[in-house]
Amino acid sequence: MKLVPLGDRIVLKQLEAEETTKSGIVLPGQNKEKPQQAEVIAVGPGGVIDGKEVKMEVKAGDKVIYSKYAGTEVKLDDDQEYIIVKQSDVLAVIE
Amino acid sequence: MKLVPLGDRIVLKQLEAEETTKSGIVLPGQNKEKPQQAEVIAVGPGGVIDGKEVKMEVKAGDKVIYSKYAGTEVKLDDDQEYIIVKQSDVLAVIE
Amino acid sequence: MKLVPLGDRIVLKQLEAEETTKSGIVLPGQNKEKPQQAEVIAVGPGGVIDGKEVKMEVKAGDKVIYSKYAGTEVKLDDDQEYIIVKQSDVLAVIE
Amino acid sequence: MKLVPLGDRIVLKQLEAEETTKSGIVLPGQNKEKPQQAEVIAVGPGGVIDGKEVKMEVKAGDKVIYSKYAGTEVKLDDDQEYIIVKQSDVLAVIE
Amino acid sequence: MKLVPLGDRIVLKQLEAEETTKSGIVLPGQNKEKPQQAEVIAVGPGGVIDGKEVKMEVKAGDKVIYSKYAGTEVKLDDDQEYIIVKQSDVLAVIE
Amino acid sequence: MKLVPLGDRIVLKQLEAEETTKSGIVLPGQNKEKPQQAEVIAVGPGGVIDGKEVKMEVKAGDKVIYSKYAGTEVKLDDDQEYIIVKQSDVLAVIE
Amino acid sequence: MKLVPLGDRIVLKQLEAEETTKSGIVLPGQNKEKPQQAEVIAVGPGGVIDGKEVKMEVKAGDKVIYSKYAGTEVKLDDDQEYIIVKQSDVLAVIE
Repeated sequence: MKLVPLGDRIVLKQLEAEETTKSGIVLPGQNKEKPQQAEVIAVGPGGVIDGKEVKMEVKAGDKVIYSKYAGTEVKLDDDQEYIIVKQSDVLAVIE
Repeated sequence: MKLVPLGDRIVLKQLEAEETTKSGIVLPGQNKEKPQQAEVIAVGPGGVIDGKEVKMEVKAGDKVIYSKYAGTEVKLDDDQEYIIVKQSDVLAVIE
Repeated sequence: MKLVPLGDRIVLKQLEAEETTKSGIVLPGQNKEKPQQAEVIAVGPGGVIDGKEVKMEVKAGDKVIYSKYAGTEVKLDDDQEYIIVKQSDVLAVIE
Repeated sequence: MKLVPLGDRIVLKQLEAEETTKSGIVLPGQNKEKPQQAEVIAVGPGGVIDGKEVKMEVKAGDKVIYSKYAGTEVKLDDDQEYIIVKQSDVLAVIE
Repeated sequence: MKLVPLGDRIVLKQLEAEETTKSGIVLPGQNKEKPQQAEVIAVGPGGVIDGKEVKMEVKAGDKVIYSKYAGTEVKLDDDQEYIIVKQSDVLAVIE
Repeated sequence: MKLVPLGDRIVLKQLEAEETTKSGIVLPGQNKEKPQQAEVIAVGPGGVIDGKEVKMEVKAGDKVIYSKYAGTEVKLDDDQEYIIVKQSDVLAVIE
Repeated sequence: MKLVPLGDRIVLKQLEAEETTKSGIVLPGQNKEKPQQAEVIAVGPGGVIDGKEVKMEVKAGDKVIYSKYAGTEVKLDDDQEYIIVKQSDVLAVIE
């Protein structure tokens, strides 16, 4: 079972889940993006996305920092969890 | 009775309905997209959509992960339920 | 008395009115689009709409699924009710 | 005293004012557009509006359905009330 | 002391201040634009504004209807009050 | 110590700080832009900003009216306070 | 361990953390951007970002003022904290 991302999408596997819930009332718009470290599992083909040419710049195996709120968590039948993001949600590669 | 999607739309049939309602007050903007597995039933012709050329990249029979909040649920007279999404709401093909 | 839609607009006549009011407080942004079946009554000429070429792909007599929230309900003097939508709000043709 | 609309704007005179106030609390975003019948009083020259060529397709004397929320009510010194809308807010011509 | 507007901006002097405060709670998004009559005092040079060619179509001395919420009130040292709007906020010229 | 603005940004020094706090509950979206008089301290190079050519039209020493909400206040180590705005937030030059 | 930013992104290291929490209820939309001084640590390659050519204009070692709300805080395993912003969030270089 394998995820093949479409367009400029990338399948990530989170390296560490460090979410600490903040107590108190959090009003919408005040949330800060939570950065996340992840390993790139699969990379879409890129191409013309929404009328604009997108060239993929990360590759499977890269460790990356991504902006969590933009992604979609996916749980496959083998109980593995992945995150699918657009390449523009990848902020930096960790070397 | 058959659904023929327009433009870059795709008719999906959900593979599993795993929605678990979260208790408590959910404020707008804090909802995360719920990923969904579905089978592609029908695919629109693509073409120039909103001034941009869209090439359809999935085909009937594909199993896909899609972003649920973007879709529209449709219940036909034969009590079958479908979801109509744009191709850009399909995140990945499952192989 | 006849409605002649402008641009990429389409005049629809609803096939079934199945709106069931949900009790409780519904917060804005949590509403899902309610799909609707309708018959196409009249179709605008299409052409350059908002700077983009739009070709009309449905025709009078088609039964369609449309996304309700985008439309405008119109009640003419003869007490007939219509809905005017843009073609992009038509999701699929029912065959 | 005469209103000469700029760009793609149109001066309308409402044919019937059928606004019935709904009781209860109306939350923002839940309001549906209220369609309106009006007579076209004056039509702007069209041309390049916001970088896009707009050709005017209605003319003075036309009876039209327009989308009310987009318009601006104007009361001139002679106590006549008009509504100024953009042509894209005109949904259909009534024939 | 003189205001020289930049780009597609226009300096207006209000002809009548007919604001009547409505009592009660006004929820955001329910406010209607309040039309305003004003005299054009100064007109910017136009040109390429936000990547689009804008040709100025009003001139000093014109009486115009403008959409108030878009403008900015300016009080100069000589206690004169002006409103600076973009030309696209001018709805019509009064003749 | 000197601020060199990037792109179409401009460094301003406020001429008068006339902010008077309004009492009562202010709901978001009801705030009007507060115009401000300032002196231009430094001007960015302009050029292609967000895909559009921007030509700088103000120069150091100009007195300008700007739209406050768009700017960012900056306090340098020498306790001088500046405001950095984009040129499109400058409404008019005062002569 | 090194962060290599993608596209038009820039890795910053904050020079001073002067955040003072304001008491009272802060409604969304009323927050002002908090400017920040930072040192540029790494600069992405630029290129065509979202269909628009972006040329990088800051370099590692520059001291800059940036608009905080747009950035993403990143904490690496060596406990160093960085902020990743787009170049358009850099307001000015401090010389």
